[in-house]
Amino acid sequence: MVIKLKIGLKSNKPNQYLINKLQETFQDNKNIELVFIDTLDDLADIEVLITANITENEINKAKNLKILYHTYTGINDMPLDLIKERKITLVNTHAHAPIVALRAFSLALALLGRIVELHQGMTCGNWHGLEGSATWMPINNQVCGILGMGMIGKYIVKYLQPFNVKLATLERYRNKLTGGNGSYYATVEDLCLNSDLVFISLPLTKTTTNIITEKILTKMENKYLVNVGRGELINEKALYNALKHKTLKAAAIDVWYQYPRQNNITYPSQYPFQALDNIILSPHCSGNAHNVGKLIADEITTNLENFVKRGELTNIVDLAKEY
Amino acid sequence: MVIKLKIGLKSNKPNQYLINKLQETFQDNKNIELVFIDTLDDLADIEVLITANITENEINKAKNLKILYHTYTGINDMPLDLIKERKITLVNTHAHAPIVALRAFSLALALLGRIVELHQGMTCGNWHGLEGSATWMPINNQVCGILGMGMIGKYIVKYLQPFNVKLATLERYRNKLTGGNGSYYATVEDLCLNSDLVFISLPLTKTTTNIITEKILTKMENKYLVNVGRGELINEKALYNALKHKTLKAAAIDVWYQYPRQNNITYPSQYPFQALDNIILSPHCSGNAHNVGKLIADEITTNLENFVKRGELTNIVDLAKEY
Repeated sequence: MVIKLKIGLKSNKPNQYLINKLQETFQDNKNIELVFIDTLDDLADIEVLITANITENEINKAKNLKILYHTYTGINDMPLDLIKERKITLVNTHAHAPIVALRAFSLALALLGRIVELHQGMTCGNWHGLEGSATWMPINNQVCGILGMGMIGKYIVKYLQPFNVKLATLERYRNKLTGGNGSYYATVEDLCLNSDLVFISLPLTKTTTNIITEKILTKMENKYLVNVGRGELINEKALYNALKHKTLKAAAIDVWYQYPRQNNITYPSQYPFQALDNIILSPHCSGNAHNVGKLIADEITTNLENFVKRGELTNIVDLAKEY
Repeated sequence: MVIKLKIGLKSNKPNQYLINKLQETFQDNKNIELVFIDTLDDLADIEVLITANITENEINKAKNLKILYHTYTGINDMPLDLIKERKITLVNTHAHAPIVALRAFSLALALLGRIVELHQGMTCGNWHGLEGSATWMPINNQVCGILGMGMIGKYIVKYLQPFNVKLATLERYRNKLTGGNGSYYATVEDLCLNSDLVFISLPLTKTTTNIITEKILTKMENKYLVNVGRGELINEKALYNALKHKTLKAAAIDVWYQYPRQNNITYPSQYPFQALDNIILSPHCSGNAHNVGKLIADEITTNLENFVKRGELTNIVDLAKEY
């Protein structure tokens, strides 16, 4: 089998390591041509397109596109209906899952440790500590609920290992918690209400949108929430109200409802989360860590190399499930 | 062997769980009398005193004192010369070492993850992330230097296990790094300059005061420092200058140079650390976590019970070493 491919790279922030790696990997293969996409017309005969984002218009121009390779994980902003209709194979990237999980874990420890809040006190000369009001919550022995047991969830479980926590997740992930010491719940509500701390690492799909409902958020008085999935997994208004009225104890959120365009000042929601004192705001940077570009480039290159050599391609998105 | 003891508890914030636990443990032992110290005169015939702090005057009043039981770990504020002269056995507490280690670990992840700094940006609508300037440093694969391989250091090592870090410590702790994959350095300077991140969990003694010198701090451009030991382990002025001039990349500090009296506004140093953007300030709250009082009370009670029953006492401070 000889695979001839025109591979396109479309990015306004090119990953030079990826470019070098692809060139190095395919330099001796005359059947592979690497193209940098500058204009819409460049897309016309591309068969494999590597990109972090794409519009319907671009897909329409890419008449020969067979494989759309997304350089991150979440594909909720892609024109999925058109991709399905065109029978394009959508592939996404999971190499940085350990790093996203680390962000979730770090945010959780900062939240339970009140690190932001106590730091802000100290900058005003306020020592909660010596008055006894700096008491923070060790993660040890807490019930940690994991909503989303993909790669990210598995790494969160790994990082929690030294802390003797109790793990919980949904019934549908039964047997995915290692060591067999986990609890499984049939519903998201039961999972949240039986956990002390809930990690959300789900993809955003039609079925997961608003999966954390107002009803759940009004019953989490002593509970913590960490979201590294997508903002819309949690009902926006209900999250704000729950934090404001403390029906949810505190949250650390990396994924949002509003994003800035260019360099405008943009708050992350129509509600003033930035005015609350029981939230840690993180600027959607789970995957924006040192060395992540290399992890992603290595995964993409290896995957495409296997495809070219053996016709094997992993990380294909199930378009029916949307992840 | 019958041990008759008058055990005194001196505290302005009594740990009710400790009181109950001691009463319950010794209620059937007619040789043990529990006394709550209200006035100096109450100290006169106390043989075992449990307290978080003591003055020379109080020790002079406690003429029968044989065992001074400190409810925390650091004994640097105790009148050690007088305790030595009086041949009083000084005992301290290590039950909360896993919690202090957790604070150090949480501060480290917050520091590398720029959690405080990025949160503060977001509260002003500043999304570093989408401009690519939110890049943070995963702890994975970093060289983590541990200065102080007592109980706290051992737990820090345990928490680092899932992250495939490289461990380093001093030659004098050889074989204390589990798994045998650690590097050992003869001097503190070599340890610091060969680490990416240095955890300080030493006791403050004559020999450890200013152990992190100006010379070291001028050479740590790309390095992070976390201190949960005592402030004076690090040269105060040099730490400030190193952070201000970025000869040290960033620091997270829980232990300080100045402490508040009553509720006055007090900054933690004569230098304005609170004005720097590459530091996380923490109000000496490593041991001030939920459930720590119980851990400490359980350790003290078990230790005293073993002493009363079998004459065995652990956690005795070596007054020559000061820890």
